[in-house]
Amino acid sequence: MTRTATDRTSVLAAPGLEGVVVAETSIGDVRGLEGFYHYRQYSAVELAAKRSFADVVELAFRGELPTKLGMAAAVIPRSLPAGLAAILPQIAATGTPLDVLRSAVSLLGAELSWRPILDTPSAELLSQALELCSLVPTVLSAVDRLRRDLTPIEPRDDLGFSENYLWMLHGEEPEKEVARAVEQYLILVIDHGFNASTFTARVIASTGADLAACICGAIGAMSGPLHGGAPSRALDMLDEIGDPSRTAAFVRGLVGKGDRVMGFGHRVYKTDDPRSRFLRELADRLHAPLLDFATDVEQFVEATLAELKPGRELHANVEFYAGVVMDACGISRDMFTPTFATGRVVGWCAHVMEQAAHNRLIRPSARYVGPSAPQPVPTS
Amino acid sequence: MTRTATDRTSVLAAPGLEGVVVAETSIGDVRGLEGFYHYRQYSAVELAAKRSFADVVELAFRGELPTKLGMAAAVIPRSLPAGLAAILPQIAATGTPLDVLRSAVSLLGAELSWRPILDTPSAELLSQALELCSLVPTVLSAVDRLRRDLTPIEPRDDLGFSENYLWMLHGEEPEKEVARAVEQYLILVIDHGFNASTFTARVIASTGADLAACICGAIGAMSGPLHGGAPSRALDMLDEIGDPSRTAAFVRGLVGKGDRVMGFGHRVYKTDDPRSRFLRELADRLHAPLLDFATDVEQFVEATLAELKPGRELHANVEFYAGVVMDACGISRDMFTPTFATGRVVGWCAHVMEQAAHNRLIRPSARYVGPSAPQPVPTS
Repeated sequence: MTRTATDRTSVLAAPGLEGVVVAETSIGDVRGLEGFYHYRQYSAVELAAKRSFADVVELAFRGELPTKLGMAAAVIPRSLPAGLAAILPQIAATGTPLDVLRSAVSLLGAELSWRPILDTPSAELLSQALELCSLVPTVLSAVDRLRRDLTPIEPRDDLGFSENYLWMLHGEEPEKEVARAVEQYLILVIDHGFNASTFTARVIASTGADLAACICGAIGAMSGPLHGGAPSRALDMLDEIGDPSRTAAFVRGLVGKGDRVMGFGHRVYKTDDPRSRFLRELADRLHAPLLDFATDVEQFVEATLAELKPGRELHANVEFYAGVVMDACGISRDMFTPTFATGRVVGWCAHVMEQAAHNRLIRPSARYVGPSAPQPVPTS
Repeated sequence: MTRTATDRTSVLAAPGLEGVVVAETSIGDVRGLEGFYHYRQYSAVELAAKRSFADVVELAFRGELPTKLGMAAAVIPRSLPAGLAAILPQIAATGTPLDVLRSAVSLLGAELSWRPILDTPSAELLSQALELCSLVPTVLSAVDRLRRDLTPIEPRDDLGFSENYLWMLHGEEPEKEVARAVEQYLILVIDHGFNASTFTARVIASTGADLAACICGAIGAMSGPLHGGAPSRALDMLDEIGDPSRTAAFVRGLVGKGDRVMGFGHRVYKTDDPRSRFLRELADRLHAPLLDFATDVEQFVEATLAELKPGRELHANVEFYAGVVMDACGISRDMFTPTFATGRVVGWCAHVMEQAAHNRLIRPSARYVGPSAPQPVPTS
């Protein structure tokens, strides 16, 4: 049993698959060097400025913006099915809200009888995706209230997507500009290339598993601190800094320990993150309480990082101002990442549908670097 | 905003990442052309022949087989924590047993306060992995009994791993050779290269998420019909064929429709699958009721596939005889894939630990092939 050369023709792809093209997609793209990203043929930032969340969902799922009446007008259930509604109070305090969402989606797929996507016609998969995206805010707002010993609030069909989310969170109708700010944030985060959670959803989809399996996996990936787990950490950092003048010392301390500065730097962007630019303007329109402080800290952090890590182009990323905006919209810190998920689940679903339509099982290889085999097994 | 050449230096990797080396590993390897696979430096088949499941878990997790007293002697909890035990009866009938396992693992991680692996010392992650692998059979046997309106049976610490699993499933101590057969099957399926579920676990682990997030994702990937979902389908196919003489016509019918023959062919093996060879011998030792029939069908299927798809080397894979063995051990068909997961979770955990020890966020790229962007966003 000697190793044959033909077993080992491949070379190791870049660590972390950085820059390795693993699929083709029509959903969107990130042009890291230009600081630009788009959904289908449209700038994501321009979509956030001009269109509704429901319109952009339609674009992501069907490839076209609605003209007059589209999917946006269709009635998609916002109320939880009975089984999940009954069990949610028992699981609401298990783990973080994102952990609970993962469990809830796992249960939801079964309750709604989602079959493997391999056996699901595309129109049915589209319905499942629409229903899932519609139910995520209901699950999360209920979880948030249950964790605070409050009764969940029923969704309202007469409100827009983000208005309804804020209604369910707080029990009062939000101001228009607050609801629009949340809506714009959600549009901005729908999709962003083959990030780890999106890639996870596609790997699972490639096995033909059901939509719930794909989205559970993606939620799990998003819970990782190196992926989506950090918008609240950026605000925690602001707390820790306390005063902008202490920023440089704080950053030197972190870098000295080899730690990352939360909310700065991005694997793909080597420019300003276009999402953070938009969110900073949004925070300005909202007169966000933390904006001035955050802007000062941003300048100090960028200056200090430019000095300590020259040429690395470490700029404020989407997390930094997302926290400032969500804070101004009355969303509590432990709901920042779950709110991020409320937008991103649309992108995950779009990628699952695209993977299902052109499927090939994703099964890469690894290079074995352990002791050479086989050696005889000792009997104990 | 024109596309720059430097944004697009990478070429598309093989579809499905086939043959693309995405990481280095010391856990094991599959040599597809030789029909050989190993865990660390030992042949997996030889380990199944000579060692206990607990020994091979130690090999997978710590890199060494125990000599006298090892981890195998440590007391690892087999009883469910109170929260999960209380909720299991309510979720046992939601979806397949594997779907329920996914939900249960999602809840378990929170109940056991597993933190992101990024913040978890390696010794603590090892304890979590051991506890998870110890609890999976308890969850699954309870789920199986609850689905049949039977009371779950408490685990026993005085029994070996597979003995205890069969005890909890059936409420009686299994015959020694049956318990050993299940144990050998579990050893055989602990690890098998960068299959889709293992790769999913590593992608999620690369974000620094907690162990439950990684394993939930992996379970979801395993639920896909193109990955682990098929040992019961292989037996369903035997039922459908009914008589070996009808095999050729059955296979022609499937191939004519462009369908796969369940239990035949493998992405990596182009020879006999070494697992199926071992399991066929195991089925023979057990006097498995379905063995003669399955052997006849295998010969007819291979002959027909060789004729219809010359040069493709489509042989019986692990699923085909796994079903025959599990059936002979009194495991019901809807527990075949969950039982597979009971072994494979060890491999997933080993890979999560390896990823955590040498982490780099896995974030590949995609090539955008949609309409060129940006185009102006129409206002609705």
